[in-house]
Amino acid sequence: MSVVTDQISTGPAGWLLPTSLFTDHYELTMLEAALQSGAAHRRSLFEVFARRLAEGRRYGVVAGTGRLLEGLATFRFGTEELDFLSDQRVVNDTTLQWLADFRFSGNIYGYAEGEAYFPYSPLLQVESTFAEACILETYLLSVLNYDSAVASAAARMTSAANGRPCIEMGSRRINEESAVAAARAAVIAGFASTSNLAAGSRYGLETVGTAAHSFTLLHDSEREAFEAQVASLGKDTTLLVDTFDVESGVRTAVEVAGRELRNVRLDSGDLVEQAHWVRSLLNELGNHETGIMVTSDLDEYAIAHLQSAPVNSYGVGTRLVTGSGAPTASMVYKLVSRQDGNGEWIDVAKAASGKNSLGGRKHAVRRLNGSGRATAELLTVNQRAESEGDNRPLQHAFVRDGELQPGWTGPAAVTRAADRHRASRAELPAAVRRLQPGEPVIPTVFNEA
Amino acid sequence: MSVVTDQISTGPAGWLLPTSLFTDHYELTMLEAALQSGAAHRRSLFEVFARRLAEGRRYGVVAGTGRLLEGLATFRFGTEELDFLSDQRVVNDTTLQWLADFRFSGNIYGYAEGEAYFPYSPLLQVESTFAEACILETYLLSVLNYDSAVASAAARMTSAANGRPCIEMGSRRINEESAVAAARAAVIAGFASTSNLAAGSRYGLETVGTAAHSFTLLHDSEREAFEAQVASLGKDTTLLVDTFDVESGVRTAVEVAGRELRNVRLDSGDLVEQAHWVRSLLNELGNHETGIMVTSDLDEYAIAHLQSAPVNSYGVGTRLVTGSGAPTASMVYKLVSRQDGNGEWIDVAKAASGKNSLGGRKHAVRRLNGSGRATAELLTVNQRAESEGDNRPLQHAFVRDGELQPGWTGPAAVTRAADRHRASRAELPAAVRRLQPGEPVIPTVFNEA
Repeated sequence: MSVVTDQISTGPAGWLLPTSLFTDHYELTMLEAALQSGAAHRRSLFEVFARRLAEGRRYGVVAGTGRLLEGLATFRFGTEELDFLSDQRVVNDTTLQWLADFRFSGNIYGYAEGEAYFPYSPLLQVESTFAEACILETYLLSVLNYDSAVASAAARMTSAANGRPCIEMGSRRINEESAVAAARAAVIAGFASTSNLAAGSRYGLETVGTAAHSFTLLHDSEREAFEAQVASLGKDTTLLVDTFDVESGVRTAVEVAGRELRNVRLDSGDLVEQAHWVRSLLNELGNHETGIMVTSDLDEYAIAHLQSAPVNSYGVGTRLVTGSGAPTASMVYKLVSRQDGNGEWIDVAKAASGKNSLGGRKHAVRRLNGSGRATAELLTVNQRAESEGDNRPLQHAFVRDGELQPGWTGPAAVTRAADRHRASRAELPAAVRRLQPGEPVIPTVFNEA
Repeated sequence: MSVVTDQISTGPAGWLLPTSLFTDHYELTMLEAALQSGAAHRRSLFEVFARRLAEGRRYGVVAGTGRLLEGLATFRFGTEELDFLSDQRVVNDTTLQWLADFRFSGNIYGYAEGEAYFPYSPLLQVESTFAEACILETYLLSVLNYDSAVASAAARMTSAANGRPCIEMGSRRINEESAVAAARAAVIAGFASTSNLAAGSRYGLETVGTAAHSFTLLHDSEREAFEAQVASLGKDTTLLVDTFDVESGVRTAVEVAGRELRNVRLDSGDLVEQAHWVRSLLNELGNHETGIMVTSDLDEYAIAHLQSAPVNSYGVGTRLVTGSGAPTASMVYKLVSRQDGNGEWIDVAKAASGKNSLGGRKHAVRRLNGSGRATAELLTVNQRAESEGDNRPLQHAFVRDGELQPGWTGPAAVTRAADRHRASRAELPAAVRRLQPGEPVIPTVFNEA
């Protein structure tokens, strides 16, 4: 039994299911053909990178690495998976046997979760036989592409919010499992909490909630609804005040909950204008400590616009979980080097028109100036960057000889990734905060050596 | 034990996990407050609808209904879920007990999967106590919003392809479970097959695959790679010919596989221009029966553009699984009617600025003219549409008194939904095929009676 399994032996069933069929048909038929040709056993290096950031974005944020390492432990072909592949004649018996025995035995390196990335940053490297690396492709990309898309959008939102808490509330707008991944990615990129209970359960994230219009409408009056909520959840709660009329909603909320009312929530209309007069009204009623939470299709631009208003927290949904216009990070998984029949390493790359990529193993450092500010993403091919005082290495070993290295998975890894993201963002030039479209905030520099 | 469970007792573990924590925190705190106020037991009617279609779209396509009905069977709070909710003090003991006993006992009605929908179409209705309907909200919306977004995009693609097969290949671009749902939704909206093995396994979808550039690059030459693929998979396969030089790739493919070569695949460059000369080259080489498959960031517009080219099939990825610019269907779940303390039904709706919705139970029919062509989405409130000869009823009973009605789940339901989608689309005005932005192809008409 591989150590990878042993290290991820607890946690909700949701992420202990086999992940092996989250795979494209062709990964397994390529495996079969390569087993037959003998090339399957050639050592190979695959790299994950994005040729470009989402349009106009200044940086991307790596997320999903912890999830994919967790999923690797259950990337196994058991009876159910093998029966399906056999019944559908996806692959032949030799290949089925190989899959039955499959345990990832190679190495995985990459950028730590929460790290900023740029075009061509080698986010993940899988070094193993072709066979082992090939069958992981679809799953690894699925996880990284979605999670990083959400984290990259979330980072712009928390940056725009400039310290005011952002709360992830987008579960209902996206696939139910995506919602869990999105909550996790959002917290890595600076969100304070999530509404998603499965994310709370799996990753130890703080979950929070207010109430919906339906709760008010269920009761015979807004007052009765507020009384019911306060009786059950206490005065330290958030009352939704825009079901009927915002002003009377606020007055009723204060009458029912008194000074201790934590928040009122505004979910419609002109939020900037409302926030101003609701703040005045709350102050006039003596509720100086009651906050204003706003929701309603917020994105980074709306948050920036609301920064001038007396708002205390932002609930963000749809635009977060759909990557604010960029719902996938467009990462690819490319064979960049492999051994030949004599064990010599050969760099490889597709050569036909468009989509060019560069063969060879990439080493990556973030080049820093004397003040510790990032100035470039420095990639060197087949050799490490020359040692310069302030280059920060970006690649870590996640898996060595099939063995998961400690510290990259589970709830604690999410907390560490959030800390890392904060540090990584702080190191980038100030232009990183700009929301308007532009070039990556630091250039990617290839030094082919 | 509820009959719902019994009806969905087989199938891969992937969809037999508890779905109950795919839920927003506030659904359970609202439940707690409503249990305490007593209002939780009021019979309620919630409706799912979209206030608008994605920008410029002529129609939407309902998908996800089968999946959510399958998931309803495992929407249970077992020890693990209850322990989490208790440890995190999400809800009190009374509420935990209620959740432990929860079995959905109400009714669910709605549009059949594959059906076209329009603004305000009541796609799903949940009629039960407030308590039971409230806690389902997040999960039902997650499933419908993503699956319908993909199906709505897929329908435009298959419409543009006009009979040429479309193949779903987007798994790597989106969350791993989203990918399965996307494959299913794509097939409902006319896709021929998918690359996703989990989707094949769960829903009996046909899975297909070709080969990647890495497979060619793994071998010492393109010829060796093609020989390996043909030796393993036979000549009835698709060879990827653009790793180095397309012309020599095509020539080598024909030399290796001969007349029986099924397809060559083009994945880069100007596909229209290439398809023309590759077709000529294949014909010149005598391979009149070998088809041309194109891939590479296709969407409905690229497919329409390629219709003039001699292309045989389209592999569609990123743009499909991200809804071609609309990655969520923006559906909402609103309380529209509920009983008061005396058992009288009261229609309800939010009244504050923006986001207005209409209280009361909606009955929906598609109004058809004498030729069987749809002319309007007719919604009547609290009474059925007057009987007119050619009105087609749109609402079906999926669950009655907690009991799943037969025919709406599992692989067979996907096939039926695909048939239904074809019929539903054929019934719409011809403008349904237009890709340029415009109004919904039929108006939504409210007849409040």
